[in-house]
Amino acid sequence: MTARIIDGKAFAAGLRARLAARVPSFVEKTGRAPGLAVVLVGEDPASQVYVRSKHKATVEAGMQSFEHRLPAETSQQALLDLVAALNADDSVDGILVQLPLPPHIDDKAVLAAIDPAKDVDGFHVVNAGRLAVGEEALVPCTPLGSLMLLQDALGDLSGLHAVVIGRSNIVGKPMAQLLLQQSCTVTIAHSRTKDLPGIVRLADIVVAAVGRAEMVRGDWIKPGATVIDVGINRVPGAEPGKTKLVGDCAYDECAAVAGAITPVPGGVGPMTIACLLRNTLVAAHRRAGLSDPEGL
Amino acid sequence: MTARIIDGKAFAAGLRARLAARVPSFVEKTGRAPGLAVVLVGEDPASQVYVRSKHKATVEAGMQSFEHRLPAETSQQALLDLVAALNADDSVDGILVQLPLPPHIDDKAVLAAIDPAKDVDGFHVVNAGRLAVGEEALVPCTPLGSLMLLQDALGDLSGLHAVVIGRSNIVGKPMAQLLLQQSCTVTIAHSRTKDLPGIVRLADIVVAAVGRAEMVRGDWIKPGATVIDVGINRVPGAEPGKTKLVGDCAYDECAAVAGAITPVPGGVGPMTIACLLRNTLVAAHRRAGLSDPEGL
Ligand SMILES: NC(=O)c1ccc[n+]([C@@H]2O[C@H](COP(=O)([O-])OP(=O)(O)OC[C@H]3O[C@@H](n4cnc5c(N)ncnc54)[C@H](OP(=O)(O)O)[C@@H]3O)[C@@H](O)[C@H]2O)c1
Ligand SMILES: NC(=O)c1ccc[n+]([C@@H]2O[C@H](COP(=O)([O-])OP(=O)(O)OC[C@H]3O[C@@H](n4cnc5c(N)ncnc54)[C@H](OP(=O)(O)O)[C@@H]3O)[C@@H](O)[C@H]2O)c1
Repeated sequence: MTARIIDGKAFAAGLRARLAARVPSFVEKTGRAPGLAVVLVGEDPASQVYVRSKHKATVEAGMQSFEHRLPAETSQQALLDLVAALNADDSVDGILVQLPLPPHIDDKAVLAAIDPAKDVDGFHVVNAGRLAVGEEALVPCTPLGSLMLLQDALGDLSGLHAVVIGRSNIVGKPMAQLLLQQSCTVTIAHSRTKDLPGIVRLADIVVAAVGRAEMVRGDWIKPGATVIDVGINRVPGAEPGKTKLVGDCAYDECAAVAGAITPVPGGVGPMTIACLLRNTLVAAHRRAGLSDPEGL
Repeated sequence: MTARIIDGKAFAAGLRARLAARVPSFVEKTGRAPGLAVVLVGEDPASQVYVRSKHKATVEAGMQSFEHRLPAETSQQALLDLVAALNADDSVDGILVQLPLPPHIDDKAVLAAIDPAKDVDGFHVVNAGRLAVGEEALVPCTPLGSLMLLQDALGDLSGLHAVVIGRSNIVGKPMAQLLLQQSCTVTIAHSRTKDLPGIVRLADIVVAAVGRAEMVRGDWIKPGATVIDVGINRVPGAEPGKTKLVGDCAYDECAAVAGAITPVPGGVGPMTIACLLRNTLVAAHRRAGLSDPEGL
């Protein structure tokens, strides 16, 4: 069997188009566009790239983008003051503080200061709690995007056995919660798991969020299973001095056995920013007392 | 093999004695005993029994017990006002609103009004979030008690495969979080799970929290596994007109295969009140700025 390739890039583009199509009716009802504020502290080159892409995507979707670039030596109090001002600013629906923050700033304290209603990254403890108990939450973007790809590929997930490898607060744990909410039987594996290949072989759905290049081998995959590869790992490329990106799954091997698989790049990756915009639009609707936009 | 019986009644009595032994030093440091407020609305007979046992256990541990009995027709606002008063009362460390509440009261709204620092039932969304992300939380009593029994029986749980049957917010989901925190590989099963016997057979640890009398059969249990039976089900007894309590596991069958097992009654049941007192003592220490009491 050769797996169907789950084209996250195309799906994300479609989602962004659907989001953009919802913006005019929001503007009509409220007199303003949904707004996303992104805060960048310092000059980390990777963070600068991310913040630029977020800005571009926000503007393309017809939303307002507010960028706040602060010098690396910004005090924690100054950052908390900015977050408080953004919390109070009615034109801001989403607040994203780009991580990592400089070492003199306690990132937990900063994330905890964000109004949960504007926490479009879904990292606030109140949103983690709402997700855990099944209340209306803002959900972290990468697992939310992974779930969308799974639902698009498989339809109803109820009763499927999902194995999530990785238990981070950003990917693995919220992914497990989302799959449980969809009535999967869910197994969470991690670095202490014994016989990981044997556990993964049980899975109808495998979500790999580990950060170890090509760790999941083809013979770990049950024939026909769906593989969502969240990993992004930079490894030496074919030519000397060049690098390339690979996932946590050995792609060719896994694609030979799986029913469907996300490539790296072009799978889960593009979903993250699309879901950030989705969360911003949803937060804007909830804050305005409108019901959630449908079909996203 | 015949399973070792995990004596929850004896363990709970030991825990309550250890708690009682910690109270005098708290009184010495703060000038007051830890206080638990229990709110009962209406005349539900089972709730009255629970509230009475909680009061007795609280007093026996040397803590202050504040009982608030309100008539069934109490308005939601009056109940919220009482919760606000208890939140503001410095002699109250723990607040427990006995469920179920009368149908005209929204129990979610009432639970959400409790100060998370006094939420000794661990049902507040902020405590669910803290548990999910691994911050210091107040954890629901029944799963916490189940974890204590497991750690007492097995020591370090790291790397063991735990299967939790049930995904309620009160037992199944927090149980899974606690086991994951202890580095178990965790599988959560529920009514949509396919081949539940096959899934349970993988488990080194089985936690059954379903509410179906004797559903888990002996041939579902891996030889030597540890079985924690949270279920409490009332079924017809041997004599006509009499009833008896059984768990979610067929006790004799499972005990013949398991390495260790909790009986019903006398297993998990007695741990719930003991953990309520434990949470009250811990909340009292945290509120007073003292470090958590050790060895509980
Ligand atoms: N936009 C995107 O597509 C996106 C977004 C976020 C992350 N990612 C990528 O996703 C991956 C995971 O990210 P993260 O933030 O979740 O990483 P993380 O916080 O480092 O967590 C990694 C998890 O993998 C587990 N793990 C490590 N080695 C393992 C092994 N040998 N076997 C089984 N499990 C193992 C760890 O277990 P322990 O808990 O036991 O240590 C941990 O739970 C990374 O490659 C990251 O770049 C992509
Ligand atoms: N102090 C104590 O010892 C204590 C405390 C609390 C509870 N309990 C007892 O523990 C049991 C569970 O309580 P709870 O509050 O968690 O109950 P609950 O809210 O009714 O949840 C029951 C769970 O069991 C699942 N389930 C139902 N039928 C199933 C089946 N045939 N196969 C697999 N899973 C099934 C349900 O799945 P779905 O989600 O798919 O419906 C649900 O997740 C009850 O017997 C209760 O009396 C004891």
